[in-house]
Amino acid sequence: MTTEKIDGVSVTTRANVYFDGKCVSHGITLADGTKKSVGVVLPATLTFNTGAAEIMECVAGACEYKLAGSDEWRRSSAGEQFSVPANSSFEIRVTEAYHYICHFG
Amino acid sequence: MTTEKIDGVSVTTRANVYFDGKCVSHGITLADGTKKSVGVVLPATLTFNTGAAEIMECVAGACEYKLAGSDEWRRSSAGEQFSVPANSSFEIRVTEAYHYICHFG
Repeated sequence: MTTEKIDGVSVTTRANVYFDGKCVSHGITLADGTKKSVGVVLPATLTFNTGAAEIMECVAGACEYKLAGSDEWRRSSAGEQFSVPANSSFEIRVTEAYHYICHFG
Repeated sequence: MTTEKIDGVSVTTRANVYFDGKCVSHGITLADGTKKSVGVVLPATLTFNTGAAEIMECVAGACEYKLAGSDEWRRSSAGEQFSVPANSSFEIRVTEAYHYICHFG
């Protein structure tokens, strides 16, 4: 089951634009102060670096990802998620738009 | 003064992707049921059609726009807004990312 909406949030109106727009997200803050983002990765192969640990939850579309130190590409599609350690990186390969919620920490 | 965030909303997690990603937005619903979207137009010249009337409020960056039936390009930058009638269209010309809130009706 996918998370179609998140209620009771404050949304930052200015988008985060990465890789010339291949990734666009909007930051949200929950009532308890938790910060997340909702975004989309368009067809591309990109490398993301993490500060805090992240859980990437797919809400539509799909991607393949490869964590730092791994040789294995794995697929993540709607309703699935994967975790990325803090101060690490992952490659992501997208052929159809990958829509996600990024949970931090 | 620009609107940096909108509180107490429900955000749709799946992005709206238009023109191969030259425009990406996320829908939001306010507590009273009002629907808006927050989005960004990346460098491009695009034509948008309206159903409901729209007010485009710029929160960062800038654009030039030309309403249907007008020959005049006008500039809209952070803190400014412009109105588009229902069932009409406008052209938008962006050279730096144009971040906006779209108010309907």
